[in-house]
Amino acid sequence: MDTSRITILDSTLRDGAQGGGISFSVQDKLHIVQTLDELGVSYIEAGNPGSNPKDLEFFQAVQKLSLSHAQVAAFGSTRRKDISCAEDANLQSLLAADTETVVVFGKTWDFHVTDILHTSLKENLTMIRDTVRFLKDAGRTVIYDAEHFFDAYKANSDYAMQTLEAAADGGACVLCLCETNGGMLPLDVRNMTEAVVRRFGSTVQVGIHTHNDGGLAVANSLLAVEGGALHVQGTILGFGERTGNANLSTIIADLELKMQRRCLPDGKLAELAPLCRRVAEIANITLDAGMPYVGASAFAHKAGMHIDAVTKNPAAYEHVAPELVGNDRTFLMSEVAGRSTILEKIRRFDASVTKNSKIVGEIVNRIKKLEHDGYQFEGAEGSFELLVRKSIGKYQPFFQLHYYKTLGERPCLDEDLCSFAQLKIEVDGQLEVTAGEGDGPVHALDVALRKALERFYPSVSQIRLTDYKVRVLGSSSATASKVRVLIESTDGRDSWATVGVSADIVEASWLALVDSFEYKLIKDLERRYRSFL
Amino acid sequence: MDTSRITILDSTLRDGAQGGGISFSVQDKLHIVQTLDELGVSYIEAGNPGSNPKDLEFFQAVQKLSLSHAQVAAFGSTRRKDISCAEDANLQSLLAADTETVVVFGKTWDFHVTDILHTSLKENLTMIRDTVRFLKDAGRTVIYDAEHFFDAYKANSDYAMQTLEAAADGGACVLCLCETNGGMLPLDVRNMTEAVVRRFGSTVQVGIHTHNDGGLAVANSLLAVEGGALHVQGTILGFGERTGNANLSTIIADLELKMQRRCLPDGKLAELAPLCRRVAEIANITLDAGMPYVGASAFAHKAGMHIDAVTKNPAAYEHVAPELVGNDRTFLMSEVAGRSTILEKIRRFDASVTKNSKIVGEIVNRIKKLEHDGYQFEGAEGSFELLVRKSIGKYQPFFQLHYYKTLGERPCLDEDLCSFAQLKIEVDGQLEVTAGEGDGPVHALDVALRKALERFYPSVSQIRLTDYKVRVLGSSSATASKVRVLIESTDGRDSWATVGVSADIVEASWLALVDSFEYKLIKDLERRYRSFL
Repeated sequence: MDTSRITILDSTLRDGAQGGGISFSVQDKLHIVQTLDELGVSYIEAGNPGSNPKDLEFFQAVQKLSLSHAQVAAFGSTRRKDISCAEDANLQSLLAADTETVVVFGKTWDFHVTDILHTSLKENLTMIRDTVRFLKDAGRTVIYDAEHFFDAYKANSDYAMQTLEAAADGGACVLCLCETNGGMLPLDVRNMTEAVVRRFGSTVQVGIHTHNDGGLAVANSLLAVEGGALHVQGTILGFGERTGNANLSTIIADLELKMQRRCLPDGKLAELAPLCRRVAEIANITLDAGMPYVGASAFAHKAGMHIDAVTKNPAAYEHVAPELVGNDRTFLMSEVAGRSTILEKIRRFDASVTKNSKIVGEIVNRIKKLEHDGYQFEGAEGSFELLVRKSIGKYQPFFQLHYYKTLGERPCLDEDLCSFAQLKIEVDGQLEVTAGEGDGPVHALDVALRKALERFYPSVSQIRLTDYKVRVLGSSSATASKVRVLIESTDGRDSWATVGVSADIVEASWLALVDSFEYKLIKDLERRYRSFL
Repeated sequence: MDTSRITILDSTLRDGAQGGGISFSVQDKLHIVQTLDELGVSYIEAGNPGSNPKDLEFFQAVQKLSLSHAQVAAFGSTRRKDISCAEDANLQSLLAADTETVVVFGKTWDFHVTDILHTSLKENLTMIRDTVRFLKDAGRTVIYDAEHFFDAYKANSDYAMQTLEAAADGGACVLCLCETNGGMLPLDVRNMTEAVVRRFGSTVQVGIHTHNDGGLAVANSLLAVEGGALHVQGTILGFGERTGNANLSTIIADLELKMQRRCLPDGKLAELAPLCRRVAEIANITLDAGMPYVGASAFAHKAGMHIDAVTKNPAAYEHVAPELVGNDRTFLMSEVAGRSTILEKIRRFDASVTKNSKIVGEIVNRIKKLEHDGYQFEGAEGSFELLVRKSIGKYQPFFQLHYYKTLGERPCLDEDLCSFAQLKIEVDGQLEVTAGEGDGPVHALDVALRKALERFYPSVSQIRLTDYKVRVLGSSSATASKVRVLIESTDGRDSWATVGVSADIVEASWLALVDSFEYKLIKDLERRYRSFL
């Protein structure tokens, strides 16, 4: 048995789809299979063809993909009690999925057999042995998932071991110990895994499958590997029912970088962060910025003292180098951030600037004043770039505002649209007056400004606002307090974020909106200029 | 030494404030102190008075709170090299904060001393000893944070131990081992903690402070406790730089429920989830639904098979009972959530209502529809009470709105006031038309509505809005997405919170404002009626 490598099974498409707010189309699933294959996981558990008709369509489509690393696996349960495998419709669906590998789960905890399945402990063992053998005889590689293994072992270790024996007898290539309820402690997981490895480890791989209910899914997986497990199941971003499954992106990086156990093909670890972002894109969720290794903030430094130290030596406040997992070091802008953060950003626009240049002090003071007024440039890189450009003279306004007016009224004059905006802008001496309707004053202003600018800059029609956040600053005067508006925009090619602050939410939104449009127009200009050279 | 209890130090206001997107006003900080005190943590590390002038204002204000459980602690570093403690401005700020407890951190890792601090290993030991003694002599209880302890111990265990010796010598009551870079493995943390406990554990408490860079902050904290640590630092929701600090809500529940170690006063664990939600509200972040124990999905079941089994026996797919941590079991498919919670609230207004009363089902359905539309009554008890009153007929409107109009324009016509509102209301057949100016449309509406109502209900002049929060719901259409507005109000006697939802931020604010005014008028009416009896 090869004990140098850990095989990874990703269940994003099966257990992950049980997570709140997660649902995948067939097309989404195919994209995720390609992404996980590119990363180089060993198995992709892709669905339960018996429980979901959409899954059968997927299994037909997935055959046409040519994968480099991963085997796609269908998932199902042991046969129902008191019938033969051939009579079991779910097992027939499993075979119909026509995958090389099949994962079947069975009951391990005596109370589940008697109280939930309502069958005898003996029949359950036969169900396990029969099912594995039936699938094996049909030419499948079988991974056996022992549901609730750890609770079962605590309750009745003898019976739990008998169920594994039945699966091994049937011909399973992996006995995967499932920590289904997610509440075990790491040392218990290691000790029980060790007991299984002692008994079965010479003939079959032992696996681990954990959930995060105690916040310990990653640790429990790693300690099972310490206990001899050679196969780890989870979901690449930790999707899953309740608190989620074990997060494979964290586990893979921990195993490779901290425990010197290989999980991925050569060179693939360095693609971990971008591939995780792609999975998040497909799932249409925002990747948690604080996710270990792959989150946008995983290597972000905010405290000035930390930034200074990291600039001197990254190991001062970084456990691994971000490039090992394909991520980047970032310095967050904030009131406690140091001068060196700001310098680094300025140098992207003007490499001649040094720590002692006068302009650095000027920009630092400008930022401090704006932060005091409620601005925050962390997460608003677009506005920050504009601020730097304005300070160093690499900026020209694209339009002048003469005025805008917004009007709202209830009851509504015209169906659901109760907000109106009118504005007048000037571009190179030409005037444009437009009006817009919207759900609220900001929406109406956005509509009117687009209309006005499109005549001069057609590419503004590509801008789509993808997020809009409002934070009320200070609470002493409530409705008269300041608000900070953050807008995220995309043109399908790039994404950028901008910020505006005012005591008037409409004006704060307007400022962020204008920055967003200007940022886009500057990028377009630069692109055109570069292609012209 | 009392080894039966673990003391908990929450650093949400200090290390947590280093997290991306987190910033607290002085008012926010005071609210968080009260919430953490209510939960019953031992220490609240509340800021670094030397690095942030806002923090000094906070430390003055926090003196006026009367806390039941927690000690507020100021945080700072050991004195600078080659000067005396009395000359060190940061230490003077620490004393000026005037807290009973002070946390100071010092360097443990030899390379940090020589390469970052640029001083000698010997001078660093003197800095630690001097600083702790100086604070101790000034009457403070001193917790010593050994920065980078675990990396330091691996690099030079002898020197790392000498730094702890210096802090113990100086009179520290806790030696807290900080896993600053967040990359250690659990068994290493346990073994190194054990070594420290063997050496210092008979005279001083050993503590643990971890970060989540390897996804192991919770496990590392628990294993340090296995190794003999009696003090745990973290942040209640895991806020913190990069991937965050150790999540105390998870650790507290794990320690109390799985390791039988007490952290909180009697009965407080059952308030964990609601108090965590309150902290998230104050921080204006959405609490991660998948957060262990306290997230909205922590006990949510989606798979039909799991729901059936949990209905038969919760232990089938739950590691602990949700009520132990103040959370609820939810079924994502068949929404039967919260009925008993709602019943309990209805019975405050009408004790004759039972679980089977028709009205309970009606209110549950009404709430479900409103929640689907974006409402949230958690933290908006005022609006919830009005909803129940309206449903059971214990409500009469205080006024009818004929119309309101808001107008905003830039440039401003009249100084800083660029927003105007006009409205017409009717009370008992009498009409009133008023107008108001304000910083923004909501402020102007607030002014106009007060003016209109004061003629009929003079007590509205007592209402002061103390907080105004905006959350954008769903982000697919950005400026056209829905917003939820939460308003907190006070009349100097009571405080209440109300909520409004609309695609138009002005209307959402109007709805919350009207609820706030009506809630106040109902309370006044009740008070008058009771005093009349």
